Amino acid sequence: METLIGRTLQFQSFHSSVDAIFWHQLSNHKVEQQKLDASPVAIHGRFNAYSRSAISIVFGKASENSTIKECIAEGTLINANTQQEFVEADVKKLRESMGKKLLESIEMDTVAEKPNELIQFLLFSYADIKSYRYHYWCLFPSLKNTPFWIVKSSHPAESVIPSNVVLPKILDFLKTSDYTQRPFFIVTKDLKAQWVVLPLKELPRCISDKLDFFIFAEDSFQLQEYPSWPTRNLLAYLSIKHHLEKTKIIIFRDGITSNNLSRSVFLDLVSRKSQDSSKQLSTVGWERNGMGQLGPKVVNLSSLIDPVLLSESASMLNLSLMRWRLVPQLDLGIIQSTKCLLLGAGTLGCGVARNLVSWGVRHITFVDYSNVAYSNPVRQSLFTFEDCKKKQPKAQCAASRLKEIYPKMFTEGHSISIPMLGHPIYESDIEKTKRDYQKLETLFSSHDAIFLLTDTRESRWLPTVMATSMNKILINSALGFDSWVVMRHGSLSQGENRLGCYFCNDVFAPSNSVVDRTLDQTCTVTRAGCTNIATAIAVELFVSLLQHPNGVAAPVSNTETTVLGELPHQIRGFLHDFSLLKISGKAYQQCSACSEYVISEWEKRKWDFVLQAINDCNYIEELCGLRLVQQLGESAGIMEEWDSDNESLVT
Amino acid sequence: METLIGRTLQFQSFHSSVDAIFWHQLSNHKVEQQKLDASPVAIHGRFNAYSRSAISIVFGKASENSTIKECIAEGTLINANTQQEFVEADVKKLRESMGKKLLESIEMDTVAEKPNELIQFLLFSYADIKSYRYHYWCLFPSLKNTPFWIVKSSHPAESVIPSNVVLPKILDFLKTSDYTQRPFFIVTKDLKAQWVVLPLKELPRCISDKLDFFIFAEDSFQLQEYPSWPTRNLLAYLSIKHHLEKTKIIIFRDGITSNNLSRSVFLDLVSRKSQDSSKQLSTVGWERNGMGQLGPKVVNLSSLIDPVLLSESASMLNLSLMRWRLVPQLDLGIIQSTKCLLLGAGTLGCGVARNLVSWGVRHITFVDYSNVAYSNPVRQSLFTFEDCKKKQPKAQCAASRLKEIYPKMFTEGHSISIPMLGHPIYESDIEKTKRDYQKLETLFSSHDAIFLLTDTRESRWLPTVMATSMNKILINSALGFDSWVVMRHGSLSQGENRLGCYFCNDVFAPSNSVVDRTLDQTCTVTRAGCTNIATAIAVELFVSLLQHPNGVAAPVSNTETTVLGELPHQIRGFLHDFSLLKISGKAYQQCSACSEYVISEWEKRKWDFVLQAINDCNYIEELCGLRLVQQLGESAGIMEEWDSDNESLVT
Repeated sequence: METLIGRTLQFQSFHSSVDAIFWHQLSNHKVEQQKLDASPVAIHGRFNAYSRSAISIVFGKASENSTIKECIAEGTLINANTQQEFVEADVKKLRESMGKKLLESIEMDTVAEKPNELIQFLLFSYADIKSYRYHYWCLFPSLKNTPFWIVKSSHPAESVIPSNVVLPKILDFLKTSDYTQRPFFIVTKDLKAQWVVLPLKELPRCISDKLDFFIFAEDSFQLQEYPSWPTRNLLAYLSIKHHLEKTKIIIFRDGITSNNLSRSVFLDLVSRKSQDSSKQLSTVGWERNGMGQLGPKVVNLSSLIDPVLLSESASMLNLSLMRWRLVPQLDLGIIQSTKCLLLGAGTLGCGVARNLVSWGVRHITFVDYSNVAYSNPVRQSLFTFEDCKKKQPKAQCAASRLKEIYPKMFTEGHSISIPMLGHPIYESDIEKTKRDYQKLETLFSSHDAIFLLTDTRESRWLPTVMATSMNKILINSALGFDSWVVMRHGSLSQGENRLGCYFCNDVFAPSNSVVDRTLDQTCTVTRAGCTNIATAIAVELFVSLLQHPNGVAAPVSNTETTVLGELPHQIRGFLHDFSLLKISGKAYQQCSACSEYVISEWEKRKWDFVLQAINDCNYIEELCGLRLVQQLGESAGIMEEWDSDNESLVT
Repeated sequence: METLIGRTLQFQSFHSSVDAIFWHQLSNHKVEQQKLDASPVAIHGRFNAYSRSAISIVFGKASENSTIKECIAEGTLINANTQQEFVEADVKKLRESMGKKLLESIEMDTVAEKPNELIQFLLFSYADIKSYRYHYWCLFPSLKNTPFWIVKSSHPAESVIPSNVVLPKILDFLKTSDYTQRPFFIVTKDLKAQWVVLPLKELPRCISDKLDFFIFAEDSFQLQEYPSWPTRNLLAYLSIKHHLEKTKIIIFRDGITSNNLSRSVFLDLVSRKSQDSSKQLSTVGWERNGMGQLGPKVVNLSSLIDPVLLSESASMLNLSLMRWRLVPQLDLGIIQSTKCLLLGAGTLGCGVARNLVSWGVRHITFVDYSNVAYSNPVRQSLFTFEDCKKKQPKAQCAASRLKEIYPKMFTEGHSISIPMLGHPIYESDIEKTKRDYQKLETLFSSHDAIFLLTDTRESRWLPTVMATSMNKILINSALGFDSWVVMRHGSLSQGENRLGCYFCNDVFAPSNSVVDRTLDQTCTVTRAGCTNIATAIAVELFVSLLQHPNGVAAPVSNTETTVLGELPHQIRGFLHDFSLLKISGKAYQQCSACSEYVISEWEKRKWDFVLQAINDCNYIEELCGLRLVQQLGESAGIMEEWDSDNESLVT
C-alpha cells in the first residue's frame, strides 16, 4: 500500500457477468411482453467483495428484499430489435446520455436520498433469440476530467476503525435502510464521541460541522491497491457536488459477511484540479470485451441449454411472435391448455395432430383400434415403414411419434373401438364393447375438445351424442374423392339458434356403411390434398373458436368474429375447381344424434341406451321421430330423392 | 389292383394349388386393369403325374408354347368385388352353370376338337387386397347320375401297350398337336397292325370301324387304384356323347418324362346305367377345404411378402383405386416418373414432399443450406427433436426421412445456397458460390419440375430465370401470416399468352429483404394452417398440370380442363375468412426474372451474368427496362403507391 502514497489514485475497470438465466428472461420478456417495443427495461446488478470487480446482472427491477450482503446498482437494458440497429447504434451518444444522467443525479443531488444512483449502468444488446446468440455491451459510466485524487496515506481499515464497535452499528444501519443506502454511508463519532453510522444525505451536516468522518464505499476489486467504479463515482460526487478537496474513504470489502475489516482499506485523499481544467466533463465506461477491445461481446447459449427446454421455447417462438404486431390479443394460453381428443389416428388424425402441435396444443389423446398398415405411411404423416413392419397400434404409435417431434407433449393412445349404429353387438362381445364405451365416456369427460376423424359415418354417431350432452367443442371432418367437409357441432346452450351436427341433414339414422363395399369404397380413395387441407382448416377453425368468449357456443356471425377472423359453421372444399364454400345450418329437431330425444335418453340410461340403439335397428329412428318423418315423406313421394342426395359429398 | 375287379370305379377328388404369385397377379390385374368390372377372367391350371392330384393354377390364358410335360385345364376366375358378394354368392347356381357348360361341350362335341374342354374349372374368389387375404373356392365340375363303370379287369399298362413302340409315337403326336390334345388321345393299331396315335376326334371312326383302341387319359393321382377328375369326365363323355358301354382306358401317368409306362394302368371297363335312371344329370365338384368341408379357403400372404414390396404395392393402392371409377383416365405413370426438385426443405418443402409422396411421386431432391433447428419439428413435418440435437443438414435429413416413409424413394439432399440478388458475393466467396450455382444448374437439368419453397423473395429470382429458360414446370408457393399464394410460372412456348412469374407484378428487381428485420420478420410467423393448405394446393395444381397434354404450357381455360379439373394460374387463400381466390396474369415484358432480356442474357453468359446481376445492384433493372419504367412512374408520381403495395401478401 505504501507504493500508492503521493500518487494519483487510479481505478480498475469494472466487469459485467451475465448468466444464461438473464438471457432466458430477456428472451421471454421480449417475445411475450415487449415484442416490437424497444424502449428501455429496468435491470439491476449485484456485487460484493467476492464478486471480483464484476457485477452480476439480473433481469428486472431491484427488489426491496435485497440482501445486505450485496450492493445493488440499478441499470437499464436497451435491447435492439434488429442486428443492424445494434451494429449501427451511436454508442458515443449512448455513453454521453448515460453520463448526463449520472451528472444530473450528482448535480440535483438525488444521490443524497439514493446513494446507489452513483452506480447506474447500461446494458445494450441484441438478442438473436432464434439461434440463442446474444450480442451485448455494458456501460459503467464514470465522469472524465473531474478533479483527480492524490493518496495522502493508506492503511488497513482496522487501524482507523474499531471494527468490533463499528461493524454492529453498520449492520443495524443497513438493516433499517433500504438497499439504495448499501453502497455508500458515513461513519463518524457523535458529540458524545460515540461511533455512529449515518446515511450519505448527512454529508452536508458532517462537512459543515467539520466532523472527522469516513465514507464507506463498497468495492469489489480483488487487488487491495485499487478501488474501482463505485469509488470513482463517489469521489466525483464529492468533488462536483460538495467541492471537497480532501476526504477519508474506507474501501469496504467483505465487512458484512466476515464481520471484520481485515480486507478493507483506509485511504486519506486530497484532490487536485484536472490538469487542463478547461476540459469539459465527459463520460467513459464502455466495457472491454474478451479481447481487451472496446466492443460488444457475444454469447451462444444453445449448447448450454437443455435440448428439451430449447425445443420448448423454440416451438413457442413462432406463435408468440404472432402477438408482436399481427394479433396482439391472441390468447395462446387457452390453446396450450385445451385438451384434445382425436377419434381416429389415420390420415385425418395424423394431420390434425400435426396442425395442433404447430399451434402449441400440448394435450393430445388418440383413439383408434387398428394397426399401422403398409399403405399408411405415404399418407398418414406420423407413421413410417418400420411401424408397418412392427404392426404398431395406430393410436399408441401416433402418440409416441408426437413425443419425437416435441418431447414435452402430454399424449397417449388408446386402442378402442367406437360402438357403431348398424354394427350389432353379439352376446360374446358385449363385455368388451361396454368397456370400450366406458373408456370413451371417461376420455370425453377429461378432454375439452373432440375431433371426429373416423372413416365411417356410423362411428360418428356416439361421439356426437356424448359431445352434445357434455357441451364439448366437436370438430368434424370427412373426405370425398376431391372434396372435403369441416364443421363444428353446435351447443345446446345456443338454444333456438343451435348449429347442426353431422347428422342434422339426414332423415335416416346411420347404419352399417362398410358391408358390401368394393375395394375402392373401403379404402380412402381421395386426392392427397383433401386430407391436408381439411385437417389444416379443421384446426384453424378450432383455434379461432377458442378465441371466441363463448367457445363452443359461438354463433355464426359476420360481426362477432374473433381476433383470428370468422367462425363459419361448415366449410366445404373442392379440388376440382379449387373452391371453398361456407355453409351454415341449424340443428334438426328430429336429428338421430343431437336431438334432445336422443341426448336426454342417453343421459338417463347411458350404456343400456347405447346397447339398445345399436342392437335394435329401429329404436333410434323411432325415438327421435325420424320414422314418422319418413312415413310422411314416403306418402309425399319424396323419400327417394332425399335418399340419393344423402352422402353425396362425404364418405 | 385285383381288388377293383368287378367293382364300381370310383374317383379321387381333385385339389387346387394356388401360389403367392397367382394372388399377386390377380391383385395387380384387379387394381390396374379390371377395377370394378367383376366379369370372368381366363386362368388355367397345369397338372401331371407329379402333381399328386393337384392342379397348379396360373393367372391368364393358357399359352400356345405350353410344355407337353403338363396337361392344361382351362379355367375361369370370378373374383367378387366385395366380401359380402363372395359370402352370399349362390354357389349352387355357380356349380350348375359350370356343369351346364361342361355338358354343352360334351353334347355339342366341341370336346372332339378340344379334348381339354372336359377339364374346365372355376376359381371363385374375393381378394382382400388391402390386407393380403385371399378367400377362394375351386370347382372341378363333374356330372352326377351318368352311367357308372365296372372294372372288368385292371393291369399294368405295359402288359397291354409296348411302351418302346408306342411312347415315341405319343411324343410325336403331342409335339405336333396343340396343348388342348394333351389330356386325352387314342392309341390303336392301323390296318397294317402298326401302333398309331390318334386325336380324340377320331373316336367315332374308331367306334364305327370297331377298332380295338385304348383311350389315354392323363391323370395325376398318387394312388394307382383310383383315377380322378379328368378320367371321370372322359368316361361321362364316352357315355353321354358316344353311348359306349365298354371301353379300354390307360390311366397315363408319367409316361412322357419317364419314357415308360411303369406307373400307368390299364382299365377294361363296362358301364351300367345309373341305378335310378330317372334322376337328372347334376353337377358336383366344389373342392373341400383344409378341414375336409365343402367351403372356401383363405390365405394370408402378408407375412410371405418382402415388406419393401408390400410397402410399394400398398402405397400405390389408393392411387390405382382412383382409376376404378372416379378418374379412369388418370395418368399415374407420369406422376411416378416426374423428377421433382424442391428448393427449400423448411415448412413448405416438408409439406410439398409429403404431398408428392402421397401422390406417388418417387423422385424428390431437396436443396437447402441450413440445419434443423429446435423451432422446426413442430411445423416442418419431416424433422424430429433428435434431428435438432444432431443439427442435421435439412436437405439430407429430409431425404433420409422420405426413405423411412417409403424405402423405394429416389431421393437426396444438397446443402446449397442459392445465389441471391441483393446479397453481394465477396471476393472470398466467389468460388464457393460459383460451385453452388453450377450444382444448381445441373440439378435443374436433371429434374422435370421445380418447386420454389424458399423463405425470401430474392432467392426465387435465379430459379425463376433458369426454369423459364429450361422450360421446366415451376410451382411457386409463399406464405403470409394468414394467407398464402400458390402459382405456376408460364412457359415461353405460350407465346403472347404466356403466364406471369412471381416477379411479373413488380417494378423493382428483388433486393436483400433480410437485412434490418425484427425477430418476427425473420421468423416464419404464419398460422400453421397456411403452410399445410398451400403445400397441398401446390401439389394438387402440379398433379393436375401433369395430366394436361401441354404440361408446363397448359393455358388457363374453363374449357381445357384436365381429368382432375381446372388449372388456375395463381391460387391465393385467406384464413381470416376461409376464402380462396383464383387469379390469372400474363407475363410482363419488363419482368426482372422471366423477361426475354434476362433469359437470353443468362443463356449467353450463365455464371458471369449471375455474378454481375448480384454484384451490380442496378444491372438487372437496367437490362430488363424496369429502370425506365420507374423513371416514367416517378415522373407520374405513382411509384410510392406501387412500392407500398409490393409484397402485401407474401413474405
